[in-house]
Amino acid sequence: YAPTRCAAAQTSTEQGVLPPCRHHEAVHDPQLVPCTCPLFSCPWEGHLEVVVSHLRQTHRINILQGAEIVFLATDMHLPAPTDWIIMHSCLGHQFLLVLRKQEKYEGHPQFFATMMLIGTPTQADNFTYRLELNRNQRRLKWEATPRSVLECVDSVISDGDCLVLNTSLAQLFSDNGSLAIGIAITTSKVHSAEDEM
Amino acid sequence: YAPTRCAAAQTSTEQGVLPPCRHHEAVHDPQLVPCTCPLFSCPWEGHLEVVVSHLRQTHRINILQGAEIVFLATDMHLPAPTDWIIMHSCLGHQFLLVLRKQEKYEGHPQFFATMMLIGTPTQADNFTYRLELNRNQRRLKWEATPRSVLECVDSVISDGDCLVLNTSLAQLFSDNGSLAIGIAITTSKVHSAEDEM
Repeated sequence: YAPTRCAAAQTSTEQGVLPPCRHHEAVHDPQLVPCTCPLFSCPWEGHLEVVVSHLRQTHRINILQGAEIVFLATDMHLPAPTDWIIMHSCLGHQFLLVLRKQEKYEGHPQFFATMMLIGTPTQADNFTYRLELNRNQRRLKWEATPRSVLECVDSVISDGDCLVLNTSLAQLFSDNGSLAIGIAITTSKVHSAEDEM
Repeated sequence: YAPTRCAAAQTSTEQGVLPPCRHHEAVHDPQLVPCTCPLFSCPWEGHLEVVVSHLRQTHRINILQGAEIVFLATDMHLPAPTDWIIMHSCLGHQFLLVLRKQEKYEGHPQFFATMMLIGTPTQADNFTYRLELNRNQRRLKWEATPRSVLECVDSVISDGDCLVLNTSLAQLFSDNGSLAIGIAITTSKVHSAEDEM
């Protein structure tokens, strides 16, 4: 497994203040998606089908393959706000893992982790993702339905509807400043996409 | 399953300030254990073998039986600090579940849940406990080795070495103001108590 993070992440936002979510602004062509890389002020927009190649080529975000992968987030001590981002290719789709260090409460950074499907909300409902931390005889698992990148990662994190870690827990699960996050994607059982359309 | 909480919990401590941990003070007879009910200023002390009957009789803490139980913590909206406490009888031992609502950061209450063995630290090392929340297509699991009640529940919680929930996550997992916590105890694999003595 290969660690990846947005190297210039801290430079793009002021301390504790994230840019407004562009998804909530009017988009003239509903087929066009703004760039989904959370911490870059990137003017790009394009169709869902080319989001992956944009993220790879412009933002150099790696793709990991396989049903179960381990993402190693390094340099957890970096000041908030910082994002760690990886794409996960699995079951014929691409998912975006966002791990964010953010100070919701001033002076108390927390870590937030969630997965987004690079696809529509209806497609996202067909999957379940699992994030797992496992170290020092402790194990923490979070399972949920991924959101679509057409929704806003900022609002998922500000709602706290994701895996949330205090600094102390993050340290317990870290090894030498790095956090290994086990990621698994499964299809939701007895759930047909057609039912919802 | 029967819900239980320390009914008078809020009255015993000032807002946000928990009493100092008596376990850290000098105890003349090392065989004597102070009362382990976290939020009562109880002068009782006694041997480990009679802690369970003290908790039942004096503090009216219920015991649930079985390898896997569900504890329903009601009235999650009560102001911090509040404790919800239940005993769990399993595998020939009694465990104490402590769910605490506390404001580590002023104005931002969080929930902390941990299990303590009513026994020695060496005995505690033989077990693994699992706390599980499951609702709204989300699942959160925490697994760890229980601490002994001879250690201090306050320090476990202030260290953050337990299941930690922000208010937003607690609400996502709550139903009508109540939080159902699945609890399971297992013996740790290939681990002999004799090895450590």
